[in-house]
Amino acid sequence: MTHRFRDLLALEPLNADELTFLLDQSKPFQEIQRHPLKKLAALRGKTIALAFFENSTRTRLSFGTAASRLGADTMNLQAEASSLKKGESLLDTVHTLNAMKPDCLVLRHAASGAADFVARHLDIPVINAGDGTHEHPSQGLLDALTIRDRKGSIGNLNVTILGDIQHSRVARSNIHLLGKFGCRFTLCGPAMWVPQELEKIGPPGASIRRVFRIEEALEGADVVLVLRVQTERLHEPALAAEDYILLYQLSAERLRGARPDALVLHPGPMNRGIEITPEVADSAQSCVLDQVTNGLAVRMALLFLLTAGDAENGEHPAAEAQAPKNRRATDVKDPSHASR
Amino acid sequence: MTHRFRDLLALEPLNADELTFLLDQSKPFQEIQRHPLKKLAALRGKTIALAFFENSTRTRLSFGTAASRLGADTMNLQAEASSLKKGESLLDTVHTLNAMKPDCLVLRHAASGAADFVARHLDIPVINAGDGTHEHPSQGLLDALTIRDRKGSIGNLNVTILGDIQHSRVARSNIHLLGKFGCRFTLCGPAMWVPQELEKIGPPGASIRRVFRIEEALEGADVVLVLRVQTERLHEPALAAEDYILLYQLSAERLRGARPDALVLHPGPMNRGIEITPEVADSAQSCVLDQVTNGLAVRMALLFLLTAGDAENGEHPAAEAQAPKNRRATDVKDPSHASR
Amino acid sequence: MTHRFRDLLALEPLNADELTFLLDQSKPFQEIQRHPLKKLAALRGKTIALAFFENSTRTRLSFGTAASRLGADTMNLQAEASSLKKGESLLDTVHTLNAMKPDCLVLRHAASGAADFVARHLDIPVINAGDGTHEHPSQGLLDALTIRDRKGSIGNLNVTILGDIQHSRVARSNIHLLGKFGCRFTLCGPAMWVPQELEKIGPPGASIRRVFRIEEALEGADVVLVLRVQTERLHEPALAAEDYILLYQLSAERLRGARPDALVLHPGPMNRGIEITPEVADSAQSCVLDQVTNGLAVRMALLFLLTAGDAENGEHPAAEAQAPKNRRATDVKDPSHASR
Repeated sequence: MTHRFRDLLALEPLNADELTFLLDQSKPFQEIQRHPLKKLAALRGKTIALAFFENSTRTRLSFGTAASRLGADTMNLQAEASSLKKGESLLDTVHTLNAMKPDCLVLRHAASGAADFVARHLDIPVINAGDGTHEHPSQGLLDALTIRDRKGSIGNLNVTILGDIQHSRVARSNIHLLGKFGCRFTLCGPAMWVPQELEKIGPPGASIRRVFRIEEALEGADVVLVLRVQTERLHEPALAAEDYILLYQLSAERLRGARPDALVLHPGPMNRGIEITPEVADSAQSCVLDQVTNGLAVRMALLFLLTAGDAENGEHPAAEAQAPKNRRATDVKDPSHASR
Repeated sequence: MTHRFRDLLALEPLNADELTFLLDQSKPFQEIQRHPLKKLAALRGKTIALAFFENSTRTRLSFGTAASRLGADTMNLQAEASSLKKGESLLDTVHTLNAMKPDCLVLRHAASGAADFVARHLDIPVINAGDGTHEHPSQGLLDALTIRDRKGSIGNLNVTILGDIQHSRVARSNIHLLGKFGCRFTLCGPAMWVPQELEKIGPPGASIRRVFRIEEALEGADVVLVLRVQTERLHEPALAAEDYILLYQLSAERLRGARPDALVLHPGPMNRGIEITPEVADSAQSCVLDQVTNGLAVRMALLFLLTAGDAENGEHPAAEAQAPKNRRATDVKDPSHASR
Repeated sequence: MTHRFRDLLALEPLNADELTFLLDQSKPFQEIQRHPLKKLAALRGKTIALAFFENSTRTRLSFGTAASRLGADTMNLQAEASSLKKGESLLDTVHTLNAMKPDCLVLRHAASGAADFVARHLDIPVINAGDGTHEHPSQGLLDALTIRDRKGSIGNLNVTILGDIQHSRVARSNIHLLGKFGCRFTLCGPAMWVPQELEKIGPPGASIRRVFRIEEALEGADVVLVLRVQTERLHEPALAAEDYILLYQLSAERLRGARPDALVLHPGPMNRGIEITPEVADSAQSCVLDQVTNGLAVRMALLFLLTAGDAENGEHPAAEAQAPKNRRATDVKDPSHASR
């Protein structure tokens, strides 16, 4: 199959075939995580720019390690609040990075739409590593890969999402992906975090309902996605931790109300004792560490798909000039054949 | 031609032939930025220490990427105010770095003369990546390379520099370099930032005049170097932004007073709407992104010239002991022949 | 000789043969620091995770450079106070890192026992890069290597330790190591920093005495280990700097009370003019820069010993599953034979 991606900005515009293609492409990279030597030469000579305008240790490490295992070098830009105060615009910053000629830009930014905006102005692939409350597509893919591996399929599952769904790009990317495969969503959390408009965010015809009692929300669930309580992103009057625990914490007792083989996912970092009990976090139903390992596989696949395309053009500089825009629309080769 | 550089601390002591040599050496590295695969093996097995005692995302990324594209590893020391408070002296810090046996030290420091001071105490090449208000030689080189590419020559140009020239190492390095090729300088900005002693900083016989009306300063300019308004380095009572814009901002209308083919340079990061309007920053006359790309080429050339010299000594440890000081005074080989 | 280490958490449990083995293994890596090209391919394809939960520029750079000179990639986690406030537990953080499949974890943490705790929960080698006031084993090894090189042996020396011994993991690791070779220890510093229980921390039968007059403490010393005055870790009412200088600073005059060939060691960074005078720090008796270079050699040896073991299993993923726990108990090969 030939793919048509230049960037990966969101999962919402992708259809089920394209999403399946991306999940399938991640499989050989899962294998690589089990090898004693995990380094490929597939992207040797390429540079991946990681521009993180929000703190995110784990996503940055995951993309950085993915790049490194493909043989690529990385350019790390971590813009703290202080350097943003220097007054340079986002567009000037990414144009400056781009002028150092990386082969791909991975961008995290607090503004929804930042990745789309940047991609419209750059001639290199852009991967959205989280933009405001909009999307976090690689997280959606790694969650789906984890579920598919455990369940055999991502079709027609009952998915319960717990927590601050209103501000969660992880929830949105999951709904956009899993909704295309017929999954049904139950959203549960404090009313201010689960507003009515969320019922319309999925693909056309998607089943999304809101439920405010956690026991009811968990009934019949195949998958429970627990969101992190991100106090730092809230502007409402704080909900007391004790109340959150009392009403919405996923405990082993509550989890028994879901299907016996229900999976528990959490994007991390977990607040143990707040949104999830240690017993659930460490249970056989918990997929949190598989999610991390699969994140590497998904990100290796994305970097490979989006930047390896012109490697076959050899080293003649004119090759790039000839086909600047569709040079990446090429058959995807099995990366496990890449030299090491 | 054989070069005699051990370090690159300043442009002031270099003559026109040496400066031309450095610019010429950067040309093959410009080519490399256009290749699909940009990585050379020229410095494989070498380590470049980047010691930045002042924040500088773009210069650090540029040197780091340059090292990486030459196949070298980097050691990154970013000394925040907090760690400086730990009380270790600059000399102890760089001696410690040096004891980890890097092949070159790239140093940025807030004190003028810091790079010279350090180079006198170390037996490895030192590159000054900006020292206080003294010099920023790689910036001067990349500006000259950009001008030479666009104009065909850097001889006898009218160069107008706008802004805080008093505190600008970029302005000084430009004047030291371009002045050796007969360029004439017009300095323009608030009087406190353009003191009379600046008329004497260039090479002997250099034409440097101060002009306080921007319209007059731009008349006949071939090159306009706009400096960043660096409020963080000032100790004078703040000049109001509105006044600065009114009197010194480079607008399209004002730029029309320069020669029609005048170039606009800015070392970045730009304060759009303060020292430069978006219209000028994004115009065909603006060279800001070329400057960034050329920065990589210049820094690859410098790292290659200063550290590749002893690679041909092979791996016999005694070789270094035999010729510790002049081992780098060797013919410069064309890096485009390096294996990949 | 076959080694039995999976982790390096502390020097206390190791016997003299094992310590000698580790020092001997570091010798070829000292040679490598003198080569013009210092990079080996011994750990190519391996990833070393550096998890530093305390600031430590020099130790982090040393382990990072060691990994890089062995051909390994690194994953850098620097957890600031702010990200710790995010609420994730230490164990969740290292489990997350481990799920990205590094081959070794280097851990620094403010809590004594953190490295042991983590190692009990992970299936990869853990190196303690400093845990609270407990141990800093690679520092103990590099100090011993430095002393052995200069003295020819570490047997039966008089070792005087000056400063805040109570809070010093460096002092403890030195006592545990050198005590196994018959060294005698004199501890000297303000009474609150040299409590009586320190007399019992060494190996059985070790000679450890406390002396509160520095002149008496230095009499007959073969080695003087000067500790950094770490004001940031103290909770007692501050000792005035003038008093510390008056009573405990190692000056040239005081050093003349030790043996004429006494060595001076300091783990760095030094507070010149506080615990040590510039004259002593820069004297021929001072070993501070040798310590830094030897630190690289020791850390390359440790990373090689703990992670290279399964390289010979080839790339078949099943190999790891067959022998998960004792796969590293293998003959140690001479790293100087590794390909470059």
